Amino acid sequence: MTPDERTRRYAELTVRVGANVQPEQDVVVMCLIEHAEIARAVTREAYRAGARHVIVLYSDLHLRRAAIELGPEEELGWSPPYLLDWMSRWPDERPALIALTGNPDPDLLADLDPGLVGRADPREIRVLMGSAIAARRFNWSIVSAPNAGWATQIFGEPDVERLWGAVATATRLDEPDPVEAWRAHTERLQARADALEAHGFDAVRFRGPGTDLTVGLLRSSRWMCATFETETGIEHIPNLPTEEVFTTPDWRRTEGFVRSTLPLVTAGTRVSDLVVRFEGGKIVDVSATAGADIIREQLAVDAQAGYLGEIALVDGSSAVKRTGLIFCDTLFDENATCHIAYGRGIPTTLGLDGDQSTDELLERGVNVSAIHTDFMVGGPEVDVDGRDAAGNTTPIIRNDVWQLS
Amino acid sequence: MTPDERTRRYAELTVRVGANVQPEQDVVVMCLIEHAEIARAVTREAYRAGARHVIVLYSDLHLRRAAIELGPEEELGWSPPYLLDWMSRWPDERPALIALTGNPDPDLLADLDPGLVGRADPREIRVLMGSAIAARRFNWSIVSAPNAGWATQIFGEPDVERLWGAVATATRLDEPDPVEAWRAHTERLQARADALEAHGFDAVRFRGPGTDLTVGLLRSSRWMCATFETETGIEHIPNLPTEEVFTTPDWRRTEGFVRSTLPLVTAGTRVSDLVVRFEGGKIVDVSATAGADIIREQLAVDAQAGYLGEIALVDGSSAVKRTGLIFCDTLFDENATCHIAYGRGIPTTLGLDGDQSTDELLERGVNVSAIHTDFMVGGPEVDVDGRDAAGNTTPIIRNDVWQLS
Repeated sequence: MTPDERTRRYAELTVRVGANVQPEQDVVVMCLIEHAEIARAVTREAYRAGARHVIVLYSDLHLRRAAIELGPEEELGWSPPYLLDWMSRWPDERPALIALTGNPDPDLLADLDPGLVGRADPREIRVLMGSAIAARRFNWSIVSAPNAGWATQIFGEPDVERLWGAVATATRLDEPDPVEAWRAHTERLQARADALEAHGFDAVRFRGPGTDLTVGLLRSSRWMCATFETETGIEHIPNLPTEEVFTTPDWRRTEGFVRSTLPLVTAGTRVSDLVVRFEGGKIVDVSATAGADIIREQLAVDAQAGYLGEIALVDGSSAVKRTGLIFCDTLFDENATCHIAYGRGIPTTLGLDGDQSTDELLERGVNVSAIHTDFMVGGPEVDVDGRDAAGNTTPIIRNDVWQLS
Repeated sequence: MTPDERTRRYAELTVRVGANVQPEQDVVVMCLIEHAEIARAVTREAYRAGARHVIVLYSDLHLRRAAIELGPEEELGWSPPYLLDWMSRWPDERPALIALTGNPDPDLLADLDPGLVGRADPREIRVLMGSAIAARRFNWSIVSAPNAGWATQIFGEPDVERLWGAVATATRLDEPDPVEAWRAHTERLQARADALEAHGFDAVRFRGPGTDLTVGLLRSSRWMCATFETETGIEHIPNLPTEEVFTTPDWRRTEGFVRSTLPLVTAGTRVSDLVVRFEGGKIVDVSATAGADIIREQLAVDAQAGYLGEIALVDGSSAVKRTGLIFCDTLFDENATCHIAYGRGIPTTLGLDGDQSTDELLERGVNVSAIHTDFMVGGPEVDVDGRDAAGNTTPIIRNDVWQLS
């Protein structure tokens, strides 16, 4: 397969399987200018799929740096009204949305005042998009765009070809028929979610070296996986790759301690050998051989930051795990093995559209926070069990192999 | 001067001297993603000059190619409503506008159906911008962004460093104090425009090998040059570089024949040894050793395409001429020597805002057409004279040296 053909097939997978672009639908692609190769290919495949208009919104992190460094401080975080106006019509216009990740320069803002960097985030746009996504208005997908800067972060050199190989493995692009491979894969994940639902566990327990953690579940929260559906019935896969079956746990009921089994890269910082301890749902102790400060900073963002918002189960058959790489990109790394996330929960797993008040969500057991950080807790040495309300346990994962049916 | 410092000074010249960005003004930069280096530097300098918000609208010609090749034909030329809505507020919001040129891939659309390529132009946006510019609502400037593709077109190899050298010469960036150099330069050009005004010529005559052309002028059309002023009084220089003193001639009164003295690159095609003959204002005969067809195609676009819309006088002191290069970019090439343009006239030279009807403009002697193509007619062998209504002639340029005072 030539590089051009590989890019084309990747874009086709993104458009047909990921976002599932419909005939005569408009498509909006959100990416950085460094993602142009994939954005162009996605545009072509979207037109081939019958899109009416394809609009690529190119961003540039260097412009954000300029605004932070040199622009008026009181304007930081400003969302351009022309974009806000347009995006506020999206829930009615219902374009397909495709976002590209793969940070070409993760250190770009590292030397700036973190307070200003935080304020430079266009909050109004983020809130607008978040609630429209939670209300299932869009068929959307996030995929990655291999680029030199991202490759350098992983390999220490701009080996884009090697990165492409890993991305192709993780996204099943190297299968003879990627579309069929994804059909079979999502069916397999759905069977796992169905089995978890059928058992109706009250809690999940992780046990392994340095780990004995029990995460309390919510009766009202479903186990979800790869395929989402818009309120108008368009199926789509929000993340390529995706290997997880996940739900929102009860933020009040996590107890014990857990050792992270893979390095974590968050906010551009590598965190190694993270160990955290929970009491009454909350992280009360953090240690790490590197990067503990960034974790403590995140946990201090707001009062609910230290409670869990997500639990996700992944076994050793993960295509991301097979690459053996840390991608320094959550889209990939969270799919390498089981993970949990402190911070914001996912109202969608309770069938909620996210418009509920903070109090109502917390009352229902869904955590609410400005942050959401995933870290990996699974692997060959970690047993995962389900426990029902009566205290009976059932194996879910043993030796990194899925057991539950 | 390091490349970074050169880029910064270039951006500073663009912001301070070109667009003359005002404190607390918003700035919109329009460019291709291949122009990112300059767009980023311009953004930084605009904030340094006190800009409130700097918005870079990145375009990508590959997306236009995709729309032409693969998108629905009836949507070609569609202007996104969110952009149209916003731009229609610009005449009131009055941002500073900076556009970057330097085509990174001039052959990109060359193999496509020219009819479809023409229809893919976002006409509504072009009309909107054209009338707001004519109404002097914006301080604006067009500058170039050196890039590999553009360098390849000029030198046959992607020698961006050599292109930078030429651009620095043409834009006086290699002067010890470029800002002061521009002040002196624009003063010199204004003195030429004033002299032409004072003489009140009725016609300009070009005489040289293969050339004897008389271009009738309009009493109501002023000679203009480098510096424009918005209706609110902000001075700005719309083109960097600029070497010309120009006016709108009477489209009804050009007679004779003219040989183009430099190759012309228009619509991505090189035209060599162009010779045209005028009768009653109109081009009636075209020949060239290469590219005659593209000229004939343009002249057939509408009934007024074959009449002149501009005459511009430049002598051998031109900084663009000094580079000895054909830049394959009108912004540069038209400033190498005297030129005329068939097609659309420039209502601004008559103090008009461009809102007049076609009939009214034609009645006043201003040509109206969908096209405007400049070609070079000056040089050491071409004498340029002014002729008054009584038939007396006065030398304007001899041996490529300006004479008139």
